[in-house]
Amino acid sequence: MNYPVVFNIIGWLLCFDGAFMLIPALTGLIYRERAALWFLPAIAVCLIAGGLMVLFIKPKNKTIYAREGYVIVAMSWLVLSLFGALPFFLSGAIPEYIDALFETVSGFTTTGASILYSVEDMPKSMLMWRSFTHWVGGMGVLVFVMAFIPLSGGSNMHIMKAESTGPSVSKLMPGVKTTALVLYTIYFVMTLIQFVLHLFGGMTPFEAINTAFATAGTGGFGFRNDSMAGFSSYNRWVMTVFMLLFSLSFSSYYLLIKGKIKNAVTLEIKMFVLIVAVSTAVIVANIRDMFPDLRGAVEHAAFTVSSVISTTGFSTRDFDEWPELSKTILVFLMFIGACAGSTGGGVKVSRLIILFKGMHKELATMIHPKQLKKITMDGSPVSHEVVRSVNVYMVCFVLIFAISMMIISFDGYDFETNFTAVAATINNIGPGLNAVGPAHNFEFFSVPAKLVLMFDMIAGRLELYPMLLLLSPSTWKK
Amino acid sequence: MNYPVVFNIIGWLLCFDGAFMLIPALTGLIYRERAALWFLPAIAVCLIAGGLMVLFIKPKNKTIYAREGYVIVAMSWLVLSLFGALPFFLSGAIPEYIDALFETVSGFTTTGASILYSVEDMPKSMLMWRSFTHWVGGMGVLVFVMAFIPLSGGSNMHIMKAESTGPSVSKLMPGVKTTALVLYTIYFVMTLIQFVLHLFGGMTPFEAINTAFATAGTGGFGFRNDSMAGFSSYNRWVMTVFMLLFSLSFSSYYLLIKGKIKNAVTLEIKMFVLIVAVSTAVIVANIRDMFPDLRGAVEHAAFTVSSVISTTGFSTRDFDEWPELSKTILVFLMFIGACAGSTGGGVKVSRLIILFKGMHKELATMIHPKQLKKITMDGSPVSHEVVRSVNVYMVCFVLIFAISMMIISFDGYDFETNFTAVAATINNIGPGLNAVGPAHNFEFFSVPAKLVLMFDMIAGRLELYPMLLLLSPSTWKK
Repeated sequence: MNYPVVFNIIGWLLCFDGAFMLIPALTGLIYRERAALWFLPAIAVCLIAGGLMVLFIKPKNKTIYAREGYVIVAMSWLVLSLFGALPFFLSGAIPEYIDALFETVSGFTTTGASILYSVEDMPKSMLMWRSFTHWVGGMGVLVFVMAFIPLSGGSNMHIMKAESTGPSVSKLMPGVKTTALVLYTIYFVMTLIQFVLHLFGGMTPFEAINTAFATAGTGGFGFRNDSMAGFSSYNRWVMTVFMLLFSLSFSSYYLLIKGKIKNAVTLEIKMFVLIVAVSTAVIVANIRDMFPDLRGAVEHAAFTVSSVISTTGFSTRDFDEWPELSKTILVFLMFIGACAGSTGGGVKVSRLIILFKGMHKELATMIHPKQLKKITMDGSPVSHEVVRSVNVYMVCFVLIFAISMMIISFDGYDFETNFTAVAATINNIGPGLNAVGPAHNFEFFSVPAKLVLMFDMIAGRLELYPMLLLLSPSTWKK
Repeated sequence: MNYPVVFNIIGWLLCFDGAFMLIPALTGLIYRERAALWFLPAIAVCLIAGGLMVLFIKPKNKTIYAREGYVIVAMSWLVLSLFGALPFFLSGAIPEYIDALFETVSGFTTTGASILYSVEDMPKSMLMWRSFTHWVGGMGVLVFVMAFIPLSGGSNMHIMKAESTGPSVSKLMPGVKTTALVLYTIYFVMTLIQFVLHLFGGMTPFEAINTAFATAGTGGFGFRNDSMAGFSSYNRWVMTVFMLLFSLSFSSYYLLIKGKIKNAVTLEIKMFVLIVAVSTAVIVANIRDMFPDLRGAVEHAAFTVSSVISTTGFSTRDFDEWPELSKTILVFLMFIGACAGSTGGGVKVSRLIILFKGMHKELATMIHPKQLKKITMDGSPVSHEVVRSVNVYMVCFVLIFAISMMIISFDGYDFETNFTAVAATINNIGPGLNAVGPAHNFEFFSVPAKLVLMFDMIAGRLELYPMLLLLSPSTWKK
């Protein structure tokens, strides 16, 4: 293991973590909040610790192999959260450090599961920090950091692979840095458009920016106790549309800009749209009676479907009170998740397509053993390695899920709570059902259960492998 | 598709189905039950329908390829149940045909999920038929039939593969027929021993034979309303031990007889024993307070763990009232299931071992891409095809599980009921939790839900592929 390069990059990351805090600190200045003063020591700690690591740990060999790549990514997200929790804890906005950490992990991983009973009691600067962690975590923070730091010698591809979502990552442009820049520009512009649309909808700038951050990262932290239920129909439709837009592959937007419309509309996007349409239609039929008119049912169904499949986790209604069929559909959408290469979580539609095609191929091979069939996606063959990796991904997913449920069941809550708590964290959604439903929060879990759920959030965001490798002895062998 | 060979074998199977009914008919004669008279028309229907098929559909080409093998197995189990339900329905013991079918499918697949409110109200001949379907289904009925019918030309290996449990099937002896004979002899002798032990424990011959049949097939149909709770501690311990014995690979018993003790104790068996020991210990600690002494807690924990992991499904206590941790462990044991090549259901311990090893290999390959590692089991390499097939098995399992839950959630019952109803049927256990817990039954489900659960029982018993292939268009293509 090339430790110097690992620590050097983590040092840089800490400096960025400190710099990120300037935004909520500024918010605090605008609103003249005393609590915001606590951002200053937090920033100082990040900059000093990070600065010392950058200055004193100079890697001789700047090559980042797969092993270093995975370790850097996994450790970075841990460190980011450990230090990112400081403002919440120091200011006393969240009295327990474990809860502050939970909230920060939930923020960076764009989960949006909260331990807070009343977000309206929080200082505005702290709410801004929560939303901003979503925005930072959505696109992947390390790819961003790597685009700026002077460590161009090594291959950053391993880091990009480990941090991006989906079964396979391709560079749009020759270099990782340029690719990152293009993606971040698209991300920034889309966020800006949503922000402006909300301003037109009568939101205050604070509300509009928080909503845009939490939507763009498909995070889901709200800043009102009723999540998004209090906003106008227009504003909720803007969110519905943008939650879906941020669930699509960002490389498709790039292709769209380049005029390659046919290439942009992939099989994954078609399937995603189909799933959203069918789920919404079934839920509308199922909840129709709960609303005075069809319009209301459509609006709430569409919003909730978008919120869950994009893994954002905003709510307008307590969908825990919906009929069992609707709830079951929502639980499935939790697992399906967004498209690869988006800011959304879940298993990803493209992985499911590969799994289906693999299953179909296996069944065909049983009947016609001599027939050789290749799995293809959008016209090009899917490599054997990707298919195997997706299969193993599912196995790891089920395993982590099972062990997590086992541990949190020590707390003694019911099956549905435990199941959806794990589902909502590993898929980076936020609210689950029953005791962790949209009207509740995660505060009541014990410390071991919270640690497990935090692990699940990071594992889910980094798509399992980096966190599993961090725990695997063979990673640390010479 | 070689239809003549398919129908010829199904014809033979129907004749055997009729012959099997002689046993409950005889029971009825002993107890002078009127209801048992209805076995006569049922037997006649089976023999006439089967006999006509055997006499008039003569296959020219007796070769059974993979395709015919899977179709024969899947169709046979359907036909077996459709006709096997006749005695229940004709006699009026179960008034609705769909319920009679559910009970029969549950019997042959050794699930043990019942639609009956009070088994004690049933005629003894009908109870005997229920238990006997377990015994027939446990070892696989087609392998038995194939050992007797004059169709020696074709390769029966495909049928044995499709009907046996576990990821890979090896012949113990040169021929499939001799292998089947050896396995059935072991099965018969073990059942006989359990029967005798129960006689010594003070059970009536009727009770002893029913218990032995239901245990040997790891089925779980009881003949008392309190399942096995009313029997003596001695009898329950006999069941505990035999449920575990019938969960072990039968080929290990063969190796044991041959004196190859080292080969008999496979990694799978070691893991199975470990899982049983650890689960029992944790549950004992968890339920200790619910019993007056430690002995009672150990007895009930051991019985329930054996009952669930062997996928038998007997109960002595309503474990739905146990603490959440114990219930969660039991849910996991439902999925783990027994050893490959046993009469038990579930995913099978050996499949889980292969999945774990595959995961470990994948993680190692990510870190050391040039290192080539082969997965081995008990010293010999596991073929690439088996590993892939096991991975795809898991994918199919999750898929069938998800679709099943989706459909039965239309009935509107709660999440835990739906989840454990599917888990208890696809893993061939019987009782689940909540509304399908040990103190309840499956009668309340709607017809579509019952059809789905029946599909799951057969799919689970035949390890998914035959039933999926029956639904796959490529099976029926020329």
